[in-house]
Amino acid sequence: MNKVILLNKRPVGKPTADDFKFIEEELPVAMNGQVLLKTLYVSVDPYLRGRMSSAKSYIPPFNLNEPIQSGIVAEVIESKNPDFKVGDHVSGILSWKELQVSDGNGLMKVNSSAIPLSAYLGILGLTGLTAYLGLMEIGKPKAGETLVVSGAAGAVGSVVGQIGKILGCRVIGLAGSDEKTKMLTSKFGFDVAINYKTTTDMQSAIATAAPNGVDIYFDNVGGEISDAVLANVNQLARVPVCGAISVYNETEVPMGPRIQTTLVKSSILMQGFVVSNYAAKFPEAIKQLSIWLQEGKLTYTETIVHGFDQIPQAFIDLFEGKNEGKMVVKI
Amino acid sequence: MNKVILLNKRPVGKPTADDFKFIEEELPVAMNGQVLLKTLYVSVDPYLRGRMSSAKSYIPPFNLNEPIQSGIVAEVIESKNPDFKVGDHVSGILSWKELQVSDGNGLMKVNSSAIPLSAYLGILGLTGLTAYLGLMEIGKPKAGETLVVSGAAGAVGSVVGQIGKILGCRVIGLAGSDEKTKMLTSKFGFDVAINYKTTTDMQSAIATAAPNGVDIYFDNVGGEISDAVLANVNQLARVPVCGAISVYNETEVPMGPRIQTTLVKSSILMQGFVVSNYAAKFPEAIKQLSIWLQEGKLTYTETIVHGFDQIPQAFIDLFEGKNEGKMVVKI
Repeated sequence: MNKVILLNKRPVGKPTADDFKFIEEELPVAMNGQVLLKTLYVSVDPYLRGRMSSAKSYIPPFNLNEPIQSGIVAEVIESKNPDFKVGDHVSGILSWKELQVSDGNGLMKVNSSAIPLSAYLGILGLTGLTAYLGLMEIGKPKAGETLVVSGAAGAVGSVVGQIGKILGCRVIGLAGSDEKTKMLTSKFGFDVAINYKTTTDMQSAIATAAPNGVDIYFDNVGGEISDAVLANVNQLARVPVCGAISVYNETEVPMGPRIQTTLVKSSILMQGFVVSNYAAKFPEAIKQLSIWLQEGKLTYTETIVHGFDQIPQAFIDLFEGKNEGKMVVKI
Repeated sequence: MNKVILLNKRPVGKPTADDFKFIEEELPVAMNGQVLLKTLYVSVDPYLRGRMSSAKSYIPPFNLNEPIQSGIVAEVIESKNPDFKVGDHVSGILSWKELQVSDGNGLMKVNSSAIPLSAYLGILGLTGLTAYLGLMEIGKPKAGETLVVSGAAGAVGSVVGQIGKILGCRVIGLAGSDEKTKMLTSKFGFDVAINYKTTTDMQSAIATAAPNGVDIYFDNVGGEISDAVLANVNQLARVPVCGAISVYNETEVPMGPRIQTTLVKSSILMQGFVVSNYAAKFPEAIKQLSIWLQEGKLTYTETIVHGFDQIPQAFIDLFEGKNEGKMVVKI
C-alpha cells in the first residue's frame, strides 16, 4: 500500500497534527507516457500555510481531503515516458505520497553528482531563487549599502545575507536565538547578528548596528521586528516583503503603526512578492547561484528530518523556529 | 515696509493661526547679479506641514522665526541680473514676503500669454508633476486597468484621475462631499466617485465600483480609506503613496492593520515618493501636461484666496478640506 498525507481540516491559527490525515491507497501504476516516482526528499515551507487556508491568495488553496503538495525530489523507478529513464532524479511540485505517477510536466532533471539532492529543494530550489530574485529585483543592492535581513537564520534569510556580502553590502541579521546569531556571523559571514528575543530595544540595536542607516530591508517576518527596522531606513530604501511568518497564524489581522507616512517621508519602496513573479529569470538565477556555490562563496544549512510520517510535524515545527536553514524531510 | 510671514512655533496637531507671525522689515534692495521680485501668487500645500515640524524628512524643516517658503509666481520689478528683465514672470520656491531679492538660482521663467500664471503653481507646477510622475513612474497604468484615487478632488488627485482617463483606465475617485464627488464625474470625467463621509461600508462600495478589482491605488490620504481600497486590490497592484493627509496632524503614529501579509499575498508594490525623486523627468512631464492642457484633455480647479494676510489661513483650511483643487493665494 502507498502512504499519502491529506489536508484533513484547514488550520485555525497555528497548524496542528490534527489538520493532517494519513491514508493508504493502492500502489499507483504508470500508464503510457508516465513515470513512476519514488519520493526521496520533501520540502516543508511556511508558504504552505497559506495554501491550507481558503483565503484568496497567489496560488489556489489545497482542497480538503486531497493530498498536500510541495517541492519534492524523487527518483524515477519506472518509465513509460521517453524523456526519463529509471534512476533519473527529478524535482517538482509533487504530492505528499511515497509513490506517485507523473506525465513529466513540470519535472526538472537534477544532477546528483555535483551537489547533494536536497540542495535542489533549498539553495538551488525555490528557497535560493526567492532569496536571489527578491534581493536583486526589488532590493537592488549596491556595494557599500546596508542590508538588514529578518528571519536571517531561515532558509531564505541566510542566502539573502550571503548574497549581500558577495555584493559588498554591510549585512545585519535578525534571528531568535544565540545559536542562530552565532551561526550568522561565524558560518554565513554576516557583519552583525541581533537576537530579537533577548534585545529589549530593537530600534536602537539596529541603529547601532547600522550607523549609516538601512538601505535595504529584506523582510521575512513582519510584525514588531519590522517596525524597528523601518524606523531606521534611509531615503530611497527598498523593502522586499517576502513573508510575514509572525502573522501567518493570526486569525485576525494584527494591528501596528500605519506606515504610509514613513513611506512618504523617506520615499521607500515596499514590495510583496512570490518567486513565481520572476519565473522568466529562474535560469539566470540558478546559473549564478551554482557558480557561487561551486566557488565556495555560498554555503547553506539544512535541518533534515527522517521519515515520511514526520512530514506534518516538520511543517508544524517551522512555526516554532525549530529549523536552522532549509527544513527538509528525507524519506 | 515689507510684510513677511515667519514660523512662530511648530504646530502640534492641526496648525493654527498662532503658529505664524507677521512682521515688517525694511524694503529689500537688489544688489549686482540680483533681481527684485514682487510676489503675485503663493502656493499653499499639505506637504508644508511636514517642514513645519522638526522631524527628519525628505526636506529640511523650516527654522523657527524665519520666513516660510513655498512655490511662488513673481514678477521681476527690478533687475541687476542679465538673465532677467523687468516684467518677466518667474516661478520658484520663494519666501512668504511681499517683496524679495533673488540671484536667479532656481527661478524658472514662465509664459503668461498662453496660460494663467496660477497654473504654474498647479497643473504645470509641482502639483501636476506629482500627479503625472507618481502615476506614470510607480502606477504604470495600462489601458483597461482600474485606478482608484483618494483625495480625488484635491489638486493632485483630480489630475491623477484625468490622466488615468486619458490613458484608458476605469477611474474611481474618493472624496469627502457630494459637491466634490459630483465634480469628479461631471467636470473631471471620473467613471465613479464615492463620498467616504456618507458611505458606511467603503470596502464593499469600492468592490462594487471596481468589479474587476483595483490595479492601481494612488493614495493621497492613508488611514482607513486606504484599508478599504487595499482590501480590493488585484495581484501585482501598484500603490503610489503620495501623501497621508489624514495622519499629518496626528501627534502619535496611528495604528492600523498590518499590511505585510496583504503585500505578499497579492505581490503588491507600495512606494512612497516625493516629486523631487523624479527631477530628471520634469521637462518631459511638463511637455506632456502642456500638450494635454492645450488639447483640452486636462482641466483643473483652483481655489483662489485673496490677500497676503490670508496665506496662513489658506494653509490651515487645507486640513479642513475647504479647497477644491489647487489652493492658491493671489496677492
